[in-house]
Amino acid sequence: MTPQEPARSRTQRRQDTLDRLEHDVDCWVATAAADGEPCLVPLSFVWHENGVVVCTRRTNPTGANLVRDGRARITLGHTRDVVLIEGEGELLTDSSRTTAADAFAAKLTWDPRDEKGYVYLRIAPKTVQAWREVNEIAGRDLMRDGTWLD
Amino acid sequence: MTPQEPARSRTQRRQDTLDRLEHDVDCWVATAAADGEPCLVPLSFVWHENGVVVCTRRTNPTGANLVRDGRARITLGHTRDVVLIEGEGELLTDSSRTTAADAFAAKLTWDPRDEKGYVYLRIAPKTVQAWREVNEIAGRDLMRDGTWLD
Repeated sequence: MTPQEPARSRTQRRQDTLDRLEHDVDCWVATAAADGEPCLVPLSFVWHENGVVVCTRRTNPTGANLVRDGRARITLGHTRDVVLIEGEGELLTDSSRTTAADAFAAKLTWDPRDEKGYVYLRIAPKTVQAWREVNEIAGRDLMRDGTWLD
Repeated sequence: MTPQEPARSRTQRRQDTLDRLEHDVDCWVATAAADGEPCLVPLSFVWHENGVVVCTRRTNPTGANLVRDGRARITLGHTRDVVLIEGEGELLTDSSRTTAADAFAAKLTWDPRDEKGYVYLRIAPKTVQAWREVNEIAGRDLMRDGTWLD
């Protein structure tokens, strides 16, 4: 299909991506089980300390996969306005968990920290890409190895 | 968050799901590599012969994962109007490939069958779930073991 808009600059895409991280409520989280079973679910998130913080039951497939392996692929937005993040999930404990849970509750008006079995995980991006349509495939890399590109 | 609408019946969800399969242009496709690396990409699709037909390069992570393992999780819609499909991808060849490629080209006005390295895969659903908000978590199962529930 013919793109509807000219391709955005990298600076603009980075700004748009940070805006989405700040304001979007949900993301798609893909993980994999030890036997290779892919998992994909929508989760609410908060962007906190340069990571995507999600909260789920530790025994859910997503929770179990992230605790075991850590690797995740996350997308924001729609299929024609994609932010794609690859990163490593870290189980939050102690003071990290407290500040993340505070940020989560403030944004999402849902505070599961006292619900049984819920864990908080922060996925720190290693790579970030953003594109809308085919004319933005070139230049979609915004972060590599955890560093925003200039 | 408080749901905005009453929960739909299973019959309504199935009809809504079939409508999305017919009319949506893109889906999210999650797969996993042999080493457990999760992959998540948006792909255009056509609903054809009771499966989600996608087309991608065989050497892309999604193509390589599906050809090797087959297992996929696919979502349609947005994070507050989810259709979630688990299924097995099958590489289409011969006459199956021709009819799928015809259906793909007719829907998507993009016909990659003669482009080098592209393969068509049909993911046949084994389980289908659909839900919008928390009040639709119960009753979200629409298909199990490849059979639509009554």
